Amino acid sequence: MRSISRTESFPAHTPAVSQVFTIVLSHGPLTRLEVARRAGLSAAAVTKAVRPLMEAGYLAEGADQDAPPALGRPANLVRVDGGRALFIGVKVTGDEIIGVLADLCCRIRVARHVPLTDRDPKAVLSSIADLAQELRTEADDLGVQVLGLGLAVSGDVDRGEGVVRYSPFLEWRDVRLAELAAMTTGLPVTVDNDVRALTVAEQWFGAGAGLTDFAVVTVGAGIGCGLVVHGQVVAGAHGVAGEIGHVVVDPAGPLCHCGNRGCVEAIAGDAAIVARVREVTGVQVADTAEALALAHQGDAGAREVYARAGEAIGRGIATVVNLFGPERVIISGEGLAAYDLFAEQIRDSFAEAAFGSAARCDVHTRPLPFDEWARGAAATAIQSFIRSDT
Amino acid sequence: MRSISRTESFPAHTPAVSQVFTIVLSHGPLTRLEVARRAGLSAAAVTKAVRPLMEAGYLAEGADQDAPPALGRPANLVRVDGGRALFIGVKVTGDEIIGVLADLCCRIRVARHVPLTDRDPKAVLSSIADLAQELRTEADDLGVQVLGLGLAVSGDVDRGEGVVRYSPFLEWRDVRLAELAAMTTGLPVTVDNDVRALTVAEQWFGAGAGLTDFAVVTVGAGIGCGLVVHGQVVAGAHGVAGEIGHVVVDPAGPLCHCGNRGCVEAIAGDAAIVARVREVTGVQVADTAEALALAHQGDAGAREVYARAGEAIGRGIATVVNLFGPERVIISGEGLAAYDLFAEQIRDSFAEAAFGSAARCDVHTRPLPFDEWARGAAATAIQSFIRSDT
Repeated sequence: MRSISRTESFPAHTPAVSQVFTIVLSHGPLTRLEVARRAGLSAAAVTKAVRPLMEAGYLAEGADQDAPPALGRPANLVRVDGGRALFIGVKVTGDEIIGVLADLCCRIRVARHVPLTDRDPKAVLSSIADLAQELRTEADDLGVQVLGLGLAVSGDVDRGEGVVRYSPFLEWRDVRLAELAAMTTGLPVTVDNDVRALTVAEQWFGAGAGLTDFAVVTVGAGIGCGLVVHGQVVAGAHGVAGEIGHVVVDPAGPLCHCGNRGCVEAIAGDAAIVARVREVTGVQVADTAEALALAHQGDAGAREVYARAGEAIGRGIATVVNLFGPERVIISGEGLAAYDLFAEQIRDSFAEAAFGSAARCDVHTRPLPFDEWARGAAATAIQSFIRSDT
Repeated sequence: MRSISRTESFPAHTPAVSQVFTIVLSHGPLTRLEVARRAGLSAAAVTKAVRPLMEAGYLAEGADQDAPPALGRPANLVRVDGGRALFIGVKVTGDEIIGVLADLCCRIRVARHVPLTDRDPKAVLSSIADLAQELRTEADDLGVQVLGLGLAVSGDVDRGEGVVRYSPFLEWRDVRLAELAAMTTGLPVTVDNDVRALTVAEQWFGAGAGLTDFAVVTVGAGIGCGLVVHGQVVAGAHGVAGEIGHVVVDPAGPLCHCGNRGCVEAIAGDAAIVARVREVTGVQVADTAEALALAHQGDAGAREVYARAGEAIGRGIATVVNLFGPERVIISGEGLAAYDLFAEQIRDSFAEAAFGSAARCDVHTRPLPFDEWARGAAATAIQSFIRSDT
């Protein structure tokens, strides 16, 4: 176990400094003029905000290397020096821990997968600590300090308190994960719901960059949804938000673990698909991979199960879009492996159930490998680093 | 028709001035210290923001009259001088126009109802102009200037552009209502969706004051929902948001005007209830009043129709809560006349379908008379007055 040491902190936590850094992080390299325009700040305010960030080495400024030479002296561009600091992101699933070492621009430098044999909080914490230590050794080899640890867990997570209130897959209740992991690793720790963490990564570095209102829908073991409204991730007053998996699409449908019938997750989640494929085809498929293989071999029953899943997902997405009118919906998650089997149904049932001009919402898929979930966790650590008041 | 005259404008449109005024408006009277705390501003910044507002007479300061005399010299409190300015709010329904004259604190001074016999935009505009003129005469009698006109219309309304894109009840498409009404009345005009306007009034002056995340659900001819997320009303990227009426609760249910089956509105909207009561009881009730009377007389069939409506509304509310996690849901609208017939069903089906701790959301009813919708329109005019950059 490492002793708790004082970790380097962000130079200044004024709103202007955080804002300027975030803009360059998401949209850079940019001219100072463009930073001022996007931030709605004066040139003087940008200069004041940029100075401590340059001095601390988080921002760098230089001539635009890509400018065409014919156009005279190239403009100076401000960019984040990604290599200045590293962050560890860890996603905990029911049977695996995925850890990444990401730089300040949230580019993955190293990724590690560790099987999880025991879901007890102590055992998981010990695995997280070992993985973090391994990644810090890699950071030492790169000669760069690790400035934060982000942990992403599915379920009801209170980021502010750093507590996992309830995680069905892990069977955890009220685990003070941030505090425990900080004690074990000596790093500042951010704990967030995994879908929200992925949404932060998409907002800052992905398909949501520049959008004030968008949704990320994840398809896999669970069906989740991260919502960004007015530029901020929706967390829910009681820690619950984005539960697209529990939008009821068929009150006469299969029983869901939440106690209701016909939830999107009870039709389109991995376990539901496997169970239904067994029921319909009589083939005792062991997991989603086998269910998928059967459908890809052309089994009509299995294909119908996926088609129905696609319909449920499309209806769930339409509900989200009818209620908050996002500019874009990004569909992702490991369930996208079956995308060819349900893409059309998602599209059609979304179009059918979207109300009026809500149908104009841009719904598209973005296959994100599992490492991306851990990258999301690293993004929350970067976010805490930039915004923290401590 | 009045000539276009220059209307008095707000003293200064810096963010701090708008913010300070809005805080005193929603939470005042307050000490300057409390204003500073709530705004996150320094005492000096509050002084700077308060000064032009006092000079223009929008804010007043004086000793706290309610302070107990034993506690020494009472603190000075800053309050909005409600009588300083008046605003007109107009709600247009399919068969009536409701207009109110509201003061700067959004207190209704005068209310008028005018029947609407012709839904053609020109005819409606002419009725609005007559009503506004009548209310301005009242304002003249009070010796106070009218500084803005707010218009609330159901349907897809683009507030930024001042255009009613589509209103099913009025059968309007792409009516440039703000521009036309400004030409006719000579007043600055704000046009908004009626449920969003009501939500603004609740946010600033009602059960949503002080909350950053809440929802207003309106029950009546339509089933609507206004959402406040991160302190701002959700408008939707394409003008559609809060369509709780088109959450599908029963895919095998009755056909909805939107083309889907079993939407909340197709089960719990006025027309759906009347149609279903006729079908179930065989009694040819003419309208909701008669349907309601039949149920209140104890007719089991009619009561069952209301019970089913309550279930649908509760399920719709659970969907909103599972997705956004608001602190509070305020149920209102003229449909609350039937509240004794479906309150229990709303509560039970909400509790059943709420996911995990989302069930802790405070769901309560707030009967708002029809004048409140017009007051909502006045609130949007006050909001534009305070925030406008022109």
